[in-house]
Amino acid sequence: MTTHVIVLNGASSSGKSGISRCLQAVLPDPWLALGVDNMVEALPASLQASEKGIEFSPDGAVNVGSAFMALDVAWTAGIAAMARAGARVIVDDVFLGGAGSQQRWQKALTGLNVLWVGVRCDSKVAAGREIARGDRPQGMAALQAEVVHQGVVYDLEVDTTHTEALVCAQTIAAHVT
Amino acid sequence: MTTHVIVLNGASSSGKSGISRCLQAVLPDPWLALGVDNMVEALPASLQASEKGIEFSPDGAVNVGSAFMALDVAWTAGIAAMARAGARVIVDDVFLGGAGSQQRWQKALTGLNVLWVGVRCDSKVAAGREIARGDRPQGMAALQAEVVHQGVVYDLEVDTTHTEALVCAQTIAAHVT
Amino acid sequence: MTTHVIVLNGASSSGKSGISRCLQAVLPDPWLALGVDNMVEALPASLQASEKGIEFSPDGAVNVGSAFMALDVAWTAGIAAMARAGARVIVDDVFLGGAGSQQRWQKALTGLNVLWVGVRCDSKVAAGREIARGDRPQGMAALQAEVVHQGVVYDLEVDTTHTEALVCAQTIAAHVT
Amino acid sequence: MTTHVIVLNGASSSGKSGISRCLQAVLPDPWLALGVDNMVEALPASLQASEKGIEFSPDGAVNVGSAFMALDVAWTAGIAAMARAGARVIVDDVFLGGAGSQQRWQKALTGLNVLWVGVRCDSKVAAGREIARGDRPQGMAALQAEVVHQGVVYDLEVDTTHTEALVCAQTIAAHVT
Repeated sequence: MTTHVIVLNGASSSGKSGISRCLQAVLPDPWLALGVDNMVEALPASLQASEKGIEFSPDGAVNVGSAFMALDVAWTAGIAAMARAGARVIVDDVFLGGAGSQQRWQKALTGLNVLWVGVRCDSKVAAGREIARGDRPQGMAALQAEVVHQGVVYDLEVDTTHTEALVCAQTIAAHVT
Repeated sequence: MTTHVIVLNGASSSGKSGISRCLQAVLPDPWLALGVDNMVEALPASLQASEKGIEFSPDGAVNVGSAFMALDVAWTAGIAAMARAGARVIVDDVFLGGAGSQQRWQKALTGLNVLWVGVRCDSKVAAGREIARGDRPQGMAALQAEVVHQGVVYDLEVDTTHTEALVCAQTIAAHVT
Repeated sequence: MTTHVIVLNGASSSGKSGISRCLQAVLPDPWLALGVDNMVEALPASLQASEKGIEFSPDGAVNVGSAFMALDVAWTAGIAAMARAGARVIVDDVFLGGAGSQQRWQKALTGLNVLWVGVRCDSKVAAGREIARGDRPQGMAALQAEVVHQGVVYDLEVDTTHTEALVCAQTIAAHVT
Repeated sequence: MTTHVIVLNGASSSGKSGISRCLQAVLPDPWLALGVDNMVEALPASLQASEKGIEFSPDGAVNVGSAFMALDVAWTAGIAAMARAGARVIVDDVFLGGAGSQQRWQKALTGLNVLWVGVRCDSKVAAGREIARGDRPQGMAALQAEVVHQGVVYDLEVDTTHTEALVCAQTIAAHVT
């Protein structure tokens, strides 16, 4: 039973992108890495800062509107189609809707073998990394730390608080079949 | 008959990305903008400079290998699925294989209404813009200028040599239904 | 009389960065290219969006405060010192204070041979390029188009409205001694 | 005795940039952050991959030539002048020449109060972070890990192997006067 998709879910600054790149390096096959950041960059500029699209408050809150949600459904369907067409895909996402977000992905990925991975990081440590990276509003990591995992069911969880991205990736890779 | 996908094909530095962003700004509906650059960035780092993946020579030549081509088929299928799921999508691509590249997209986009747009730019002017942008190997624009259009059939063509990206976008937008 | 510094002054989206990269390519000696964007990126994140630092309004207005101005004086002195230490430097800047901004640079660059270049672009064309590049608030180009040139004295002016960056660079290079 | 300049020296992927941004956040005054990456980006494209400029081998080796070295002397003089003009500056650098690199900076910074900080990271951990960040040739971190500290004298050293950038920055900040 081949793993078709690896879904990494975690709060902003929890370390998903680094794990994703390390997974690409340690897994023997080539995997595409795509994430919610790519979807946001594909939006019209006008939707990248609007009520209908996605809004980032200075305090780190993120709100998404109707146009974003409609396009996100299509984006998700597209990722699923890539996997069905033979690409192995690592998805990194932020389940702002917790269990509801997972159900949306489950529906899109029907029939595919998915490895669900929770990426945790101590909220204070993530807040520090948010300052160190310098490209995210301060507060986003803390606001998302708990909510994105609420009701979500994982095959495994990793925690980047004291574990390097590469080591987390090796742990995850051991579950890929 | 609603246009589902706009495909912009042109050589490196012909102005596709700028036209794509302008299209997103002038078209009344929200359109996703995705291109071959996004696909390349989604590849494992090891494939971004290898014979099996994609290689950029210092003289601007681009070669793609078996792993790239397999993932590209899946990427194309994914874009088509996004459009079928309701997203309107602007694709920018470089048809290194000319007519063959178009046939691959036509197959993937079966049943969708596609506006095929050729983006031209005088080869010398494009070579100058390549220097001005500073992030592409010199020579790529000139090498690709003709070959990407060979045998390709368009609904319309625009030329950025003397026409601004926004004006090209307005011309294209007038053909979107 | 060797030219030590080339100062390119123009509004946002008038094409300064492209000209700067082309100048580096066409001038036989190596020139460093530094600009106000580099200075802003060197600021603490907290000053990149604050009254004391620099603020970018959604309508494209730019305001700078006391902390920005103090650091900008030091930045300018540093650029001058690089030139005095033997580096040839292309500076690109936006003279939000018009003649006053030029006087500040003149004072810092005392004793150095400076080529003052005005970079113009039709306001409507620049506004279109602002959309095409996608990384500047819409309106900035138009707001700055006139004000940055008020009272400023140039050795030569170039206009990117109908002239490519590379051609502008060649014109400027002909004045470099 | 006010600290004018903080010099962070460490190998690639040791965590200097993150510490620098955290220092800007925790220090009460505004500090400019500038580093060798900014200097490289200011070079003509032709020097960013040439024997006379700077060359990055696929194995992570870095070589610098005569043109690079001449411009680097001027860059260093410019940073010193910024500090003398009142800007407090955090410099991050990679002392490829070990003690010789430090002497060059000491000469440029004569008369200024400098806090010399060594940034260490276990070579294996840094190699993992190099994969996770994805924008550096693999091997650079390991190649530089020891050589950049050879003969260099510090006021304090921090080690990012098990300590977060923010905590390292707080340690450093306690030594800033």
